[in-house]
Amino acid sequence: MVRIITFLSDFGIKNSYVAQMKAVASSITDARLIDITHNITPHDIREGAFMLKTSILYFPDGTVHVAVVDPGVGTDRKNIVIITRSQILVGPDNGLLIPAARALGDFNVYEITNTKIMVNPISNTFHGRDVYTPVAANIVNGMSFEEIGPKTNNFINLDFEKPLITDKTATGKIINTDDFGNIITNIDAFSLKKYLNFGKKIMVFIGKNNYKMLFLKSYNLTEKNQLLATIGSSNYFEISLNQGDAAKKLKVKPDDEIKILFN
Amino acid sequence: MVRIITFLSDFGIKNSYVAQMKAVASSITDARLIDITHNITPHDIREGAFMLKTSILYFPDGTVHVAVVDPGVGTDRKNIVIITRSQILVGPDNGLLIPAARALGDFNVYEITNTKIMVNPISNTFHGRDVYTPVAANIVNGMSFEEIGPKTNNFINLDFEKPLITDKTATGKIINTDDFGNIITNIDAFSLKKYLNFGKKIMVFIGKNNYKMLFLKSYNLTEKNQLLATIGSSNYFEISLNQGDAAKKLKVKPDDEIKILFN
Amino acid sequence: MVRIITFLSDFGIKNSYVAQMKAVASSITDARLIDITHNITPHDIREGAFMLKTSILYFPDGTVHVAVVDPGVGTDRKNIVIITRSQILVGPDNGLLIPAARALGDFNVYEITNTKIMVNPISNTFHGRDVYTPVAANIVNGMSFEEIGPKTNNFINLDFEKPLITDKTATGKIINTDDFGNIITNIDAFSLKKYLNFGKKIMVFIGKNNYKMLFLKSYNLTEKNQLLATIGSSNYFEISLNQGDAAKKLKVKPDDEIKILFN
Repeated sequence: MVRIITFLSDFGIKNSYVAQMKAVASSITDARLIDITHNITPHDIREGAFMLKTSILYFPDGTVHVAVVDPGVGTDRKNIVIITRSQILVGPDNGLLIPAARALGDFNVYEITNTKIMVNPISNTFHGRDVYTPVAANIVNGMSFEEIGPKTNNFINLDFEKPLITDKTATGKIINTDDFGNIITNIDAFSLKKYLNFGKKIMVFIGKNNYKMLFLKSYNLTEKNQLLATIGSSNYFEISLNQGDAAKKLKVKPDDEIKILFN
Repeated sequence: MVRIITFLSDFGIKNSYVAQMKAVASSITDARLIDITHNITPHDIREGAFMLKTSILYFPDGTVHVAVVDPGVGTDRKNIVIITRSQILVGPDNGLLIPAARALGDFNVYEITNTKIMVNPISNTFHGRDVYTPVAANIVNGMSFEEIGPKTNNFINLDFEKPLITDKTATGKIINTDDFGNIITNIDAFSLKKYLNFGKKIMVFIGKNNYKMLFLKSYNLTEKNQLLATIGSSNYFEISLNQGDAAKKLKVKPDDEIKILFN
Repeated sequence: MVRIITFLSDFGIKNSYVAQMKAVASSITDARLIDITHNITPHDIREGAFMLKTSILYFPDGTVHVAVVDPGVGTDRKNIVIITRSQILVGPDNGLLIPAARALGDFNVYEITNTKIMVNPISNTFHGRDVYTPVAANIVNGMSFEEIGPKTNNFINLDFEKPLITDKTATGKIINTDDFGNIITNIDAFSLKKYLNFGKKIMVFIGKNNYKMLFLKSYNLTEKNQLLATIGSSNYFEISLNQGDAAKKLKVKPDDEIKILFN
């Protein structure tokens, strides 16, 4: 079994912040280190939470995830570990970890208080390196959760609004876009299943604009540079431009409302 | 011996697609995971094929490469494994793998049909995660090729046009540019060997423009911000601007024709 | 103990240069491979040297660092290995490695002359792959330094100007900016300790502009989109915009002079 620590952050890849976390981890454990992404929009806790939630499902049991989108670093916000039935999440108490935790079932939250596990001295601006990484590395090595700090029921919640589904429409939000320009929404495939079949023509409303397109099994089933709707690889409704950049063409941004009219 | 799976794609680094492939791989094998690049121009199969071909030569025997530039995902294009004498290639049947396979000598192509090896259910839009990665991980673990699917002689070919070499000129194409702004062509060093020596002055024609420059052993052998021609580290003719960005200055793009006049 | 080779360069992430180095390393050693960054401004030896110096402190003893910011590749500049009391540095003799070496205490410099360790044939334009990586991989595997080449006292120096500190002002330079837009300077926390306390109002002069701001323990201790000064995670004075991009707002660039007036 490969033991794994993952890293997700808004640090970007220009500076060596990620490398410093891996240096600290490698000083404690030989677990494999995998980057989820470091290109979350800076300080965008919701985008980070969605990315973490949709990424973790493919990781094996026992994986420990370090997630850092943390505008409140150095204030009195808490540092937490969340233990689920299968995987473990480490990061700031600002909601970032909650949707992922909930997707994994029941969970317990521990506050990180044991300073002996942390890098000493702790920087005020980089708890990813000085707190979360050494905690994750010790957990992956088998440290008991009780040594990390006390269990707590007091933590910041974060919930993605549920999409509103009727038999004629689905209304939700744009979550983010990827490097292809695919536009990813919070409308999940499961909710649409009863109402929408591949091959159907739909109308999509975003802001003051509306677009007709086909709902298709995959991108290349329409002409090049045609808009289409599909179910992305994380099982959410998305809008794409076949071999083009839908996000650029439609000029959307995260949090824009999107409404689908089924026929 | 380090066993290796590599990943090459046009996924970019913003979303967690690459991490999801590594999660699937790590669930099956402890082989080392190495990124070749994920910044192939989206859907550009030729650029991906050239990058794969020029990257694999330094990998040890037995390395398994997962390559995904796959505009046809979810259509009826096949999924294939190519077995060469030294390394193994896994990806879509769209030509992407062929130049690399050919560079490695004789090869056999197998169609991937054994659904038991794949992630279940298979996404229509992400065969990199659901098909190629688990196949690669099982191969690196020693699974026999026969378990993957039947051998086939029916696959999509892809060939880079050969440069045209005379004793006065070489005519080829621009393949891509790197982050330094070096302009990389399909004119190989071997073809030029008889006609062109370091230190020689040459004339280069791109579109309606022509540029005089020296053909040099390396970049810093001319003045700063001077154009020069050299042989890049993958043994192809390239044009550079010493400590500057030749691609920006010359405003070239992939597929532009380039003609070298030796004197 | 995890044995580690790190890689720092200005190669970017578009081409496969980094992957080729990792292929060469993996052919020689199973040591862990960690990227520090490949997004140093092309050819900026000073920025690379600063990044290397501030990144290595968290790596365990015995780590071997391959650093390549190397405009002079293929000229007669030497290739060197620097042995410090704890870690080892491999790269071009252009000053890049020196500030890191000095931060680690006493050191010895060896010139790399043993061609048997190098990739054969050696490219004129990519010593990172053909010289530094195989040398680093052999060192991490235990090769004695004497096998690499002769000790030398003749190497290119590089020094960051010391900031000028008085009891009223600190004058230094901007080193670089990160993906958050934090502006990082060469003014170290230790120098400021006697003169500046968290909570104090300061005036900062950059070029013809001056800015009032608070010197704070962390970013989120002022209003959103307010400028602030803090001590970054590598213990240097930095200027930030809470949840915004200070570098964009102040339009600064590396090497700009910065002066802090304490009150």
